[in-house]
Amino acid sequence: MSYQTAFAAAGLSEADLKGGDLVVTSPIDGSTVAEIPTATSADTQAIIDRAQEAFIAWRNVPAPRRGEWVRLLGQELRREKEALANIVTIDCGKITQEGLGEVQEMIDICDFAVGLSRQLYGLVIASERPGHKMLESWHPVGPVGIISAFNFPVAVWSWNAALAIVCGNPVIWKPSEKTPLTALAVQKICERVNAQFGPDAPDGLCQLLIGGREAGEALAASPMVPVVSATGSTRMGKAVAQVVSERLGRSILELGGNNAMIVTPSADLELAQRAIVFSAVGTAGQRCTSLRRLIVHESIYKPLMASIKSAYDSLPVANPLDEGALVGPLIDHPARAAMQNALNEARDDGGRVFGGEPVLTNEYPDAAYVRPAIVEMDSQTAIVQNETFAPVLYVMKYRDLDQAITAQNEVRQGLSSCIFTTDMREAEIFLSSSGSDCGIANVNIGPSGAEIGGAFGGEKDTGGGRESGSDAWKSYMRRQTATINYSGELPLAQGIKFSNS
Amino acid sequence: MSYQTAFAAAGLSEADLKGGDLVVTSPIDGSTVAEIPTATSADTQAIIDRAQEAFIAWRNVPAPRRGEWVRLLGQELRREKEALANIVTIDCGKITQEGLGEVQEMIDICDFAVGLSRQLYGLVIASERPGHKMLESWHPVGPVGIISAFNFPVAVWSWNAALAIVCGNPVIWKPSEKTPLTALAVQKICERVNAQFGPDAPDGLCQLLIGGREAGEALAASPMVPVVSATGSTRMGKAVAQVVSERLGRSILELGGNNAMIVTPSADLELAQRAIVFSAVGTAGQRCTSLRRLIVHESIYKPLMASIKSAYDSLPVANPLDEGALVGPLIDHPARAAMQNALNEARDDGGRVFGGEPVLTNEYPDAAYVRPAIVEMDSQTAIVQNETFAPVLYVMKYRDLDQAITAQNEVRQGLSSCIFTTDMREAEIFLSSSGSDCGIANVNIGPSGAEIGGAFGGEKDTGGGRESGSDAWKSYMRRQTATINYSGELPLAQGIKFSNS
Amino acid sequence: MSYQTAFAAAGLSEADLKGGDLVVTSPIDGSTVAEIPTATSADTQAIIDRAQEAFIAWRNVPAPRRGEWVRLLGQELRREKEALANIVTIDCGKITQEGLGEVQEMIDICDFAVGLSRQLYGLVIASERPGHKMLESWHPVGPVGIISAFNFPVAVWSWNAALAIVCGNPVIWKPSEKTPLTALAVQKICERVNAQFGPDAPDGLCQLLIGGREAGEALAASPMVPVVSATGSTRMGKAVAQVVSERLGRSILELGGNNAMIVTPSADLELAQRAIVFSAVGTAGQRCTSLRRLIVHESIYKPLMASIKSAYDSLPVANPLDEGALVGPLIDHPARAAMQNALNEARDDGGRVFGGEPVLTNEYPDAAYVRPAIVEMDSQTAIVQNETFAPVLYVMKYRDLDQAITAQNEVRQGLSSCIFTTDMREAEIFLSSSGSDCGIANVNIGPSGAEIGGAFGGEKDTGGGRESGSDAWKSYMRRQTATINYSGELPLAQGIKFSNS
Amino acid sequence: MSYQTAFAAAGLSEADLKGGDLVVTSPIDGSTVAEIPTATSADTQAIIDRAQEAFIAWRNVPAPRRGEWVRLLGQELRREKEALANIVTIDCGKITQEGLGEVQEMIDICDFAVGLSRQLYGLVIASERPGHKMLESWHPVGPVGIISAFNFPVAVWSWNAALAIVCGNPVIWKPSEKTPLTALAVQKICERVNAQFGPDAPDGLCQLLIGGREAGEALAASPMVPVVSATGSTRMGKAVAQVVSERLGRSILELGGNNAMIVTPSADLELAQRAIVFSAVGTAGQRCTSLRRLIVHESIYKPLMASIKSAYDSLPVANPLDEGALVGPLIDHPARAAMQNALNEARDDGGRVFGGEPVLTNEYPDAAYVRPAIVEMDSQTAIVQNETFAPVLYVMKYRDLDQAITAQNEVRQGLSSCIFTTDMREAEIFLSSSGSDCGIANVNIGPSGAEIGGAFGGEKDTGGGRESGSDAWKSYMRRQTATINYSGELPLAQGIKFSNS
Repeated sequence: MSYQTAFAAAGLSEADLKGGDLVVTSPIDGSTVAEIPTATSADTQAIIDRAQEAFIAWRNVPAPRRGEWVRLLGQELRREKEALANIVTIDCGKITQEGLGEVQEMIDICDFAVGLSRQLYGLVIASERPGHKMLESWHPVGPVGIISAFNFPVAVWSWNAALAIVCGNPVIWKPSEKTPLTALAVQKICERVNAQFGPDAPDGLCQLLIGGREAGEALAASPMVPVVSATGSTRMGKAVAQVVSERLGRSILELGGNNAMIVTPSADLELAQRAIVFSAVGTAGQRCTSLRRLIVHESIYKPLMASIKSAYDSLPVANPLDEGALVGPLIDHPARAAMQNALNEARDDGGRVFGGEPVLTNEYPDAAYVRPAIVEMDSQTAIVQNETFAPVLYVMKYRDLDQAITAQNEVRQGLSSCIFTTDMREAEIFLSSSGSDCGIANVNIGPSGAEIGGAFGGEKDTGGGRESGSDAWKSYMRRQTATINYSGELPLAQGIKFSNS
Repeated sequence: MSYQTAFAAAGLSEADLKGGDLVVTSPIDGSTVAEIPTATSADTQAIIDRAQEAFIAWRNVPAPRRGEWVRLLGQELRREKEALANIVTIDCGKITQEGLGEVQEMIDICDFAVGLSRQLYGLVIASERPGHKMLESWHPVGPVGIISAFNFPVAVWSWNAALAIVCGNPVIWKPSEKTPLTALAVQKICERVNAQFGPDAPDGLCQLLIGGREAGEALAASPMVPVVSATGSTRMGKAVAQVVSERLGRSILELGGNNAMIVTPSADLELAQRAIVFSAVGTAGQRCTSLRRLIVHESIYKPLMASIKSAYDSLPVANPLDEGALVGPLIDHPARAAMQNALNEARDDGGRVFGGEPVLTNEYPDAAYVRPAIVEMDSQTAIVQNETFAPVLYVMKYRDLDQAITAQNEVRQGLSSCIFTTDMREAEIFLSSSGSDCGIANVNIGPSGAEIGGAFGGEKDTGGGRESGSDAWKSYMRRQTATINYSGELPLAQGIKFSNS
Repeated sequence: MSYQTAFAAAGLSEADLKGGDLVVTSPIDGSTVAEIPTATSADTQAIIDRAQEAFIAWRNVPAPRRGEWVRLLGQELRREKEALANIVTIDCGKITQEGLGEVQEMIDICDFAVGLSRQLYGLVIASERPGHKMLESWHPVGPVGIISAFNFPVAVWSWNAALAIVCGNPVIWKPSEKTPLTALAVQKICERVNAQFGPDAPDGLCQLLIGGREAGEALAASPMVPVVSATGSTRMGKAVAQVVSERLGRSILELGGNNAMIVTPSADLELAQRAIVFSAVGTAGQRCTSLRRLIVHESIYKPLMASIKSAYDSLPVANPLDEGALVGPLIDHPARAAMQNALNEARDDGGRVFGGEPVLTNEYPDAAYVRPAIVEMDSQTAIVQNETFAPVLYVMKYRDLDQAITAQNEVRQGLSSCIFTTDMREAEIFLSSSGSDCGIANVNIGPSGAEIGGAFGGEKDTGGGRESGSDAWKSYMRRQTATINYSGELPLAQGIKFSNS
Repeated sequence: MSYQTAFAAAGLSEADLKGGDLVVTSPIDGSTVAEIPTATSADTQAIIDRAQEAFIAWRNVPAPRRGEWVRLLGQELRREKEALANIVTIDCGKITQEGLGEVQEMIDICDFAVGLSRQLYGLVIASERPGHKMLESWHPVGPVGIISAFNFPVAVWSWNAALAIVCGNPVIWKPSEKTPLTALAVQKICERVNAQFGPDAPDGLCQLLIGGREAGEALAASPMVPVVSATGSTRMGKAVAQVVSERLGRSILELGGNNAMIVTPSADLELAQRAIVFSAVGTAGQRCTSLRRLIVHESIYKPLMASIKSAYDSLPVANPLDEGALVGPLIDHPARAAMQNALNEARDDGGRVFGGEPVLTNEYPDAAYVRPAIVEMDSQTAIVQNETFAPVLYVMKYRDLDQAITAQNEVRQGLSSCIFTTDMREAEIFLSSSGSDCGIANVNIGPSGAEIGGAFGGEKDTGGGRESGSDAWKSYMRRQTATINYSGELPLAQGIKFSNS
């Protein structure tokens, strides 16, 4: 399939892809696939104004009707699943299966949000005063800015957008400059959904803001954008958080992860091996939840390492559009350079590196394919505590579980973690208040690949935001606590008497 | 009752109140009542370290046991209610009834938190994969810094501390420099509770950090203090938020309010008048929820104003320890100067000022008593949109409800609001998604005087934090999403296939 | 449109409708439209066995997958909306708009249930013991028997089935003998959904049990059917409840209603009039939530009555398939006779009857059309306290609200109720703990026409069951409270010491 | 301590204990300890009337105030803990430690209920119609009848009463005829609490109904008692359920248990042994949650049996007031006879009986002490499937886990169950939808000794009721679903159009 065929199938016309100032290349081969226009700062302001206008209309559309919009979106995504998955692959280089999985995640969150649209539960609360009642209600909060990263070019938008829209808020999406094509394709779908939905859906419900760092900064700074959801590096997240907090806005941050797996003596090693390989090399190690640190009990270290290395040996690194490919390219040359630097630093720290070298350099000189790396470390040095966005798996031994958990928690990031064990005590300790300090803590599955029904996000340098399931929707609404007096009296709370009669 | 008697009754010895570098005066008469030591920066670090150590122990004490600690606290507070209320009055100048009400609020939140200690509900979530289950658990997060303001010198601490402690976290309290005595008195109580509880309660569970702005900054900056709850001015809150966000910590902000009441033609005017007076002059207008703006329908403007002015005329401004006093002093001279400046600015804007002049200047030359002010305004000028922390009530007319709501929402602050009406449509519109944009929206009660069962806090420049009831406890915990695989298979989420066999 | 065309459009073949022992007539004209087979008692047992077998398989299908089944059902229902609505009209005689509304309700509950399929939230609960955790989980409970009534021949099934299936339970549906055709049509749809879903959906997931009272009794008596949901008369419900309770099964009862509206002096009378007419004559007064009692303040009695009578005068009573028809036939001649008897009894009690006479007797001699009746009563006599399943609206005056609420609560049924008022105090009192004692209490909308997002059902003789929204899903699951000890100790709850060492 | 001293300490005067028609004996020695009056049927009606009257007042007392009543109860119970525990022992024969534990459970539920009193959360629900909102509120339901059994003579009352009272309902308590003294003692406490609370607490808030089966039947039959909570045998429960369902009331049933433990090869055997002994012989095997069936993997059968038998050998069977006693008497001679019959039947089925014989027959000829029995069975015969209320532990072997779970689920009762394992897969399978079918399913703790934070109760012949924690409070309230229209329009749900204009 040529890129052009894929673009056409996803509704992207030649006109859409020509004449702009942002040069888009595909990580598959490094070729330029589009030149698309970016927003000027006047455009940005106009987009924000349009969102504000859309908000005034959309917040009064009943939530179940808003749910119908999201249902239509889910339906369109089901229809376009393959076409969109292909653009995901072309845009960010992940393999077809993962592209399909990413679109499935969009569909899942739509289904979930439709159900939410008849819930968005507030509370009726017992009041201490006769003839009074208390209510907690959740109301739309205003335009939501979504800053997404290249590695999940569409799913992250959908987690935010499906909830934000059901909650009564328009969205403004600033995709990664590296992957704007998927955003364009999704925007086409949104426009179709708007048309199907009819006039109640305002024009500015879903808008795209193509641009670089300034575009993101404009969203972060605007008081008209009460919520900014930002996915990306910890560095970016801190910058966003400070700008947003300067105006007392709300940030939802999904930042770096440095995710570990502990493998205990009782683990099902065959299961562990499969989980390790998928979570360490899936999306070429470029998931925020990718497995980066493996902490293995000394008693099983040898057989497990042998089995992993053997699996790595046979991993097909290839064009991600090829059937059979399991590892596609890194996003670009700087990413490959960063990986090589990390491996060198690890070597300097005494690490034994297995794999990790550039590959397919002849076939795709402008792309950045690598063989995934395993690095055996004696201790958790600085480089191990850093997140290198590439398929590098650091492996360490441990002797007792406390020590393993301490090592797991030692890094600044707090996104995902897991343990492989069949011992219920080990599993429960890992999940307990003195266990993993991450937002995600799994047992017998890898750190990546969350279902949408749970809240997704992490602690510490991961930024503390939560998206997707559970009550993550509350981040997209404002809470109103009301006390209603329907009596003829005016008793004060806490029994205060205030009167000079 | 002499101050000394009051101090002794509250367990404050002479030694506690002498020899320090922080000079404490009572707003009642401006006299110096104590000189207490402040923490050096080394002290501060030691306090934080002790809190961290306490955390390691306390997080593993079962939550219902932690609830028992808070139950004992509630019991002690019941016993000490009057003694502590007196210190509240001496420290911040609020009248006895309000001092008692404030301690009652502490007791209420303790009762509530005890119940919570057997809840702190996480979720069991349906998983999409066979042989899997998902859990959302809430775990202790670490030491909580509490920065409180002079106007609720003890209640705000208790909202935060009762929840934080039940949730498994030690607290470090930096009270206002203006009201450290209440903090000392509460600290004595906490020490008694610790002793009653026995060895499971670590030493550093409740600590006091007496100091100025640097002490607050140290809490905001420390990565060992994952949650900082700050109550005070918007200016202070923005500063805290930025420092905390720089390290990706969590802030709970309760900042300024500029709270309005809308009075509609159908209102019960007698009820409205009483609510206006209490909420505008209670605590001498120094509540964050004090009524500052009154938006009255033109058809009832005259009678309502007449009735309010008449009530103001007979308001007893007096020493707050006197029985019968309803309005005590402002916190200090600068507060009175700021009030006079505001009144002058309002006059310049065409406002008609009623009352507002300094009083009791002979009796208490070093204190800052004022007569509460009513200012009739033709429009909502800059000074009206500002929060002046004093009993100044701006009054404006409106013609239709939309206009009134727009005026109510026009200010930057978003804390509290209310409507007086007997018309259910007006009430519901006020509470709806296009109604009041505040965190608190009441019907037929004033903006101040929240019950502890609801979540307390506000939007926009009020900072977005929520404390006290509902699920505010979640702000004091970390959320863990776990997926547990107990099958022998390793299915991936979203149906992804990843295998080269 | 001929019946045959309608049947064909809904997938009912001639073979489906011929040769059975149950003669099905349409209330539209009294003609026989089908003869369908009923289940023998051996058939019934086989159906129950098949359901049990299906249960063993279905309970292990992950809930979100079960949700997918329901999503497919919703999709099919969208596709078949008109065709199915026509069968509803032919089967039970309700007008086309109401038939469409009923199918829409099926669709709505499917959307809702899909969202639930990723929730079905259990709880993680704080344990009092170190190294312990508590979980509350919800598990599938087993086959659910659904006994439905003629007046909502498909919606009631869908409320139960969508939830039951998402919750992991097969359903066995015993429709009213009067309306089996809609059930056959829905069964066809279910079979299509099963086929689309694939082999994970067991054959016995959705089964039909066509039969009379014995069929219902068999479901009620079978220990293999842990949950029996029964909609119909109070008499039937009591019988079911006793049989089910004899084996300690669970009943969900939706029985009779005798629903009232209170109209207060401040009511929007135009709105009230429209609500009265729709809720009193919609579905020819044969909804369980139909308005049967109107309690009007004496001050507005005259104009309101005039306006209602005028509206009744112009009500088109007609073949429900006709465009423009608002009132179709009663279900059968006995229903008409019962109505006439009720009117006579009311007359004997001093009631003034307006309308109520049989109509279209020439055009449809075998059908039972009537003009809706208004009966002005001086007091709430025995006949008024009875539920007559026909369009009879008893009207009474009241003087003060307490008296009106007492009258509203005086009947044995407790399903639905409403107040029309613009006075917020009246509205709130009506909704308060001393207000309406019904399961449904509306303000400014009639008693009928619930949205699916709320829990539907009533108190007292209505049977106490809840279906549809909120946490009604819990009725279809079993609750499991688990305490998990992952420590090496065995502390007892409540601090008990039990040891002889 | 003499009985008289104990009675006096608990506030029971001689007058309270003399002259009635109900002869009360202590199981400790079979001696008559009191003769107390029972209610005539006129008394019963008066009690119910008084409860109804109390309801009308109490339902309007704000819930947090109602919580204060329960807080005072908890405080009194703390004060009276020992005194009341002694009466528990004298009345039902359980050892002092268990008596104290039972009172602690009362205290715990009070603390929990106080917290609930500011929750009792209803829902604000998103409505599909513009200008509408939906609320789910929970209101007091009316007098609650509590029928309790001898084995938990006070805790069961407190679970029900603490919740019922916070929920706004008076309670009528019919204790077991075998243990009325504890009820008298608790009633004294309630009267003190009423007095402390002041006039808002109506006289009939807590009433005692002393009597036999007719008294219970009167509660079950009365339409003035909307909720009947009954704890006892399955036979009794079925009878109550049918009477209550005849009037469409609500039953909360806590009936028989036949609770099993599965011990797997990976179990911590020392822990298992201790749990087995406590849960099989605690309260002399007369807990509804007592361990009755032990299902042991064949590989560990021998060592486990040896260890249990050795523990049984040294169990002190003694006067329960004696320090050191671990096993007190059965409740009476018929109970001992039933136990002997069961052992004989088990022998006939091939069971090997260890222990079980009457003891202390000389010391206490009128009491019914026994040595706890272990019975090794080859299969689960009829007698094993029966609940014999005595310390009889049937032991069986299993080979694979499925078989063990099937055996565990094979009985008609569904109260409590547990597994001892350190294998997380076994634990999770046991807790899964195809695992234990009981209301309680524990891991590594015995079946008895629930914390109050979870919902307590069971499935199948256990009756399906839930008491104590989680959302069990909902059983004591009526649910109200309200839709509120504050717009000027009258849109119908499901988009129905109904108009002839």
